[in-house]
This record gives sequence, structure tokens and C-alpha cells, in this order.
Amino acid sequence: MEMKVASQKEYAIGVDIGGTKILLMAADRHGVVRHKKKVSSTGNLEEIFRLVDMFIEESNLQHQDIAGMGIGVPGDMKGTEGIVRVSVQMGWKNTDIGAFIKGRYAFPVFIKNDVNCSALGERWFGNGDNTDHMVYISIGTGLGGAIIANGRLVEGNNYSAGEFGYIVDKEDIRAGVFNSAEGFGNLERKIAGRSLSQKSDGIGCTSRELFREYIQQNKAAVEIVEQYTTDLSILIANLVSILNPEIVIIGGGVSESMGLIKGIITEAVNKLTIFPVDIRLSKLGGEAGAYGCIYYVFYEGLPQLEKVPQEKQKAWRKGFEAMYQDCPQ
Amino acid sequence: MEMKVASQKEYAIGVDIGGTKILLMAADRHGVVRHKKKVSSTGNLEEIFRLVDMFIEESNLQHQDIAGMGIGVPGDMKGTEGIVRVSVQMGWKNTDIGAFIKGRYAFPVFIKNDVNCSALGERWFGNGDNTDHMVYISIGTGLGGAIIANGRLVEGNNYSAGEFGYIVDKEDIRAGVFNSAEGFGNLERKIAGRSLSQKSDGIGCTSRELFREYIQQNKAAVEIVEQYTTDLSILIANLVSILNPEIVIIGGGVSESMGLIKGIITEAVNKLTIFPVDIRLSKLGGEAGAYGCIYYVFYEGLPQLEKVPQEKQKAWRKGFEAMYQDCPQ
Repeated sequence: MEMKVASQKEYAIGVDIGGTKILLMAADRHGVVRHKKKVSSTGNLEEIFRLVDMFIEESNLQHQDIAGMGIGVPGDMKGTEGIVRVSVQMGWKNTDIGAFIKGRYAFPVFIKNDVNCSALGERWFGNGDNTDHMVYISIGTGLGGAIIANGRLVEGNNYSAGEFGYIVDKEDIRAGVFNSAEGFGNLERKIAGRSLSQKSDGIGCTSRELFREYIQQNKAAVEIVEQYTTDLSILIANLVSILNPEIVIIGGGVSESMGLIKGIITEAVNKLTIFPVDIRLSKLGGEAGAYGCIYYVFYEGLPQLEKVPQEKQKAWRKGFEAMYQDCPQ
Repeated sequence: MEMKVASQKEYAIGVDIGGTKILLMAADRHGVVRHKKKVSSTGNLEEIFRLVDMFIEESNLQHQDIAGMGIGVPGDMKGTEGIVRVSVQMGWKNTDIGAFIKGRYAFPVFIKNDVNCSALGERWFGNGDNTDHMVYISIGTGLGGAIIANGRLVEGNNYSAGEFGYIVDKEDIRAGVFNSAEGFGNLERKIAGRSLSQKSDGIGCTSRELFREYIQQNKAAVEIVEQYTTDLSILIANLVSILNPEIVIIGGGVSESMGLIKGIITEAVNKLTIFPVDIRLSKLGGEAGAYGCIYYVFYEGLPQLEKVPQEKQKAWRKGFEAMYQDCPQ
């Protein structure tokens, strides 16, 4: 049995699975989109892959035209076999997507954390300017992140790098508040969208209105936003001192209303670290993940499969089995 | 003019320049040491390279036997051209080592930050087990660090990644204490060796004795060490949540007396992050840097030169000129 890698095939499929929507995209290695579709989300795998199959059909693509598929999921991965350890949003726990789709596709399928995909997408077609050194901070309901160093995604030893939400400080220790794998992380509690919504509710506005209220010097809003920008600026400044990225991109739902405070954050960060950095908001918004899935197939996943020597491929095959079926001639 | 890369040559020279000592080493790509020598340090470049030349001669190596030389310097680099931005220990500022040695050697010379070299050395021959995901924390007089991700050194956009000493927290902001490029960084002030020495002095012991006093429940020592382990554990835990390394290694002079508190730090870190990590002390001590210089030549520097396409090599040549001279036949 010879392993063939289909990197010369023209299109890749990107599937960004979110809590409310799934964005499907078919594009080539230059990011030229052939077909795109947004559908309602579901935690049911049978349903998800029925939607995927339908999308491929609608794209008028034969399986042999497809180089691979990248799937972004809102949860943390156990390895490369496609097992999602936990996804609160999807209601998944140890959900083995790899086993579920085994034998279903005649091309490799890569299943990755959605924030990692968004970072790759922003870098490729958003505000990342293809830099080799980037940090992506995703502020949605929760707080996530991703790191690109030396031009490659940093996934870490157990695929959990970029978990900025679990950062702690001395105040947390004094207060006796500790991270837990099930609940929100310590920093997540402070700067994720959920906390912002609760605080906005408390002063009678939405979190979208909060930053405007702040600019208009509404005293209650000023207090909340100053605390917020301090926490966020410390995070960014420390990531800059640790990783020396060229660009930090803030994405996720909350970033959409952060244009008003971007200048304030930049100023604060420049005071807190001696290293220069360019802080930007996401350009692609909700489409970053799907672009990143496609990028991953062409520029991380397939090249990694290709450069693996024959003996190692054998050893890996077990791990990749669910991910990788031989392509028909 | 054709550029030739001498990666088939058998030996590399490692030169770890410290504030008090210079360690010179000649070894092959397997780390088998041919010759090793420790000499008193000096900030005078002429003197340093006279020592290097003498060492090469003593090693009985012809220049054409040498694949390359790696030099570790205690300061931050401006780029790949060998210009040291600042080295407080050596009394250097914008010191152009690259220009100084231009034309002197018939092999490529790579000049890197010494902490980065120590990290590579520890990973190769120390306690790093050749892991692809490692963080190295160097606690000497100052506080430095290095990151290895996806098997490669993370140097960042301006070669200043790993500057953990500049990490800030909310207390710093409240106290109005900010990092400056000239002085010690905020976290450096708290956990570097200098601060530990000052505090030990204050209670009438040396910093080496401090941890023993702590274990023996000397009340004054307990207070200092508890504060110290808290600050250090927060640093490690946050680096683990951010980077998900397999191994964190603590090196530098202070680490030599940290065996007594390693267990306490490990326990604290496990409380502060949900991600598993293996915390270890340096095995190679003062030799890590020289090993890392040799590793860099064989496994980072030369491969990077080799894979650069011809056109790009031309554009790079300006930058590498001082670093890279054609090898004689």
C-alpha cells in the first residue's frame, strides 16, 4: 500500500464549526473562493457531515479534485487523530470525529482548534500580513489565543498552546481563585465577552454600547472599561515581552466593537513593554476560521505529511489513519 | 562568486562569552568534544578573538575542518549580522562583532544571545530530552529566557523573544513601576539573583544558604522564599498556559541551589495551571551555552543557510557578509 499525498489537487475545503453557525468554504491555494455557505450549527456529527457532503456537491467538486479538508472546532484537541477532548459549545467530550469520518473521504482531513485556524486565516488574508511572528487573541464568549512563531503555528506538546484564558496573577492567589479545566479560566473571567456583558448589564447597556459610553465619559462605563483595558493591556504587553511578535491581532465577537478603544490599548501596551509591536483588530471577522482551515491544508497539513519519511509514515499511519485515506488513482 | 556551505565539515567551535569566563569548545555534530577550555573574560574584542584563534590552534583543527562557529553573548542582538545592541555585562553598546571579524574566518560564524544558546544546549545534551516544546528560564544576576517550539528556537521579530524579565502585573501598575530598556525589568527585579542576594544579605546569609534556611523554617527566610517561589511559580504556570511546553528547565547560577525548593515550585505550578509540565533544573550548568553554540551551527545555522534559494542568498549576503565567507577548496 503506497501512501499518496494529493497536494497537487486544486481545492481544499474549510469547515469552521461554531456554536451557532458553520461556515463552509471551498478555495484554492491562493485563497480564491469557489463556493461559500453559512448554515445553522448542530452538535450532531451525522448532521454536520451531511451538510459537508452537500456543500461539496454544490461546489461541483469531485473528491479527486480536493487536496484536503480542514475542520476548525471550538474545543481542545487530544492529538492529530481528530478527538475533541472537550467542547462546551458543542456539548462534546472525548468526541472522536476522526473515527466517525473514517473511510468517508478520499482526501486527508485535518481537525484543529478553531482559534488556531482563525489565526492562520487572519495571517493569510486578514491583518496578519503573512508575518512569521504573530499572536492572535480571540475575545468572544470565552478567551482563546494562538501563536505563530518562525512562520508556523505553535500548538505545544498537547495541542493546548495559546490558552491565555488560564493566565493567573498574584491577586488571584490572594483571592484563592484557581483555574479549573471545566470552568472559565482566571483571566477569561476578567476579559472574556461574558464578563463584559454581565458588567454592561449592571449599568444598563449592552457590551456593544459599553465602549461608546466610555468614550462619552459615562462614569460607570469608564470604571469598567479602564479595568478592562488594563487587564487586556497587561496580557498583550506580557505576550510581547515573551514572544516578540511583529503583530498582535485581536479577534472574536468582542473585537468588532473595540475600534473605539484600540488606541487606548496600544498606548497602554507601549508603556508596559519595551518591545515594539503592531496591535490590530481582526479584518476577516467570522470568516477567518474557514480561511485558516484552507491554509492549514495547503501549507501546514499536507507539507507535514509529505516530508515524513516512509518508515515514519508507517508509524504515524495509526495516528493518521482516520485522517488519511489513500487517494484513488 | 559561488556560496559554499561547509556543513559536511566535521567540527564546530562554540564560544560562550560570559561576564567573568569564556568557555571554548570544539565538538562534532554528535556533541563529542575534541577540546574544551575555560579562560578569563574580557570585553575587548581583539583579546577575545586572539583567545579563539589560540583555542582553534590548540585543538589541532585547520580552518577547513571547521563547519562553523557559534558565539553566545550576554546581550541582545540587533539581527543576524552580529551587532550586539546592549550588553551590560560586557560593557558593549551597538558593538559590531560581525564587522570586527569580517574576513577572519573561512567558515560561517553565528552570533546569538547566550540564553538562547544555553536552552539549545540543555535540550541537546542536558535535561531537555530533545523535546520539540521547551521553555528555558535563566536565573543568574538577571533574568532571561528562551523558547523552543516545533523543535526550533523562537527568536521573535527582533530577536528579543524570551525576555521574561519584563513581565508586569497589576501591582506594578499600581506602584507606578515600569520597565525600562536600561535598567532591570519588572519581574527581573523580583526574581533575579541580585534581588535574592540583597534579601539574603538583609537576614545575614548568602543566597546559597537562603533555601536551606527556608527548609529549616528560619522565619525570615521563609517569608523571602515564599514570596520568591510564588513569583517564580506564577511565571512558570503562565508560560505553560501560553506555550504548552513539555519541559521547563531552570538554569543560571541561582538554579544551582534550587534543588531544595524544586518540589515546592512544581507543586505550586500544578495548582496554577491546568496543563501538565515537567519542571527540571539545568544539568549542564555553565557548559550549556557552549554546547548550544555548537548545536546552533550544525542544526539551525547551517541548515538555514543551505535551504535559502540562490536569489535570496544574494539578497541575504549583505546581511550575512560578515558572518559568511566562501570556504577555500
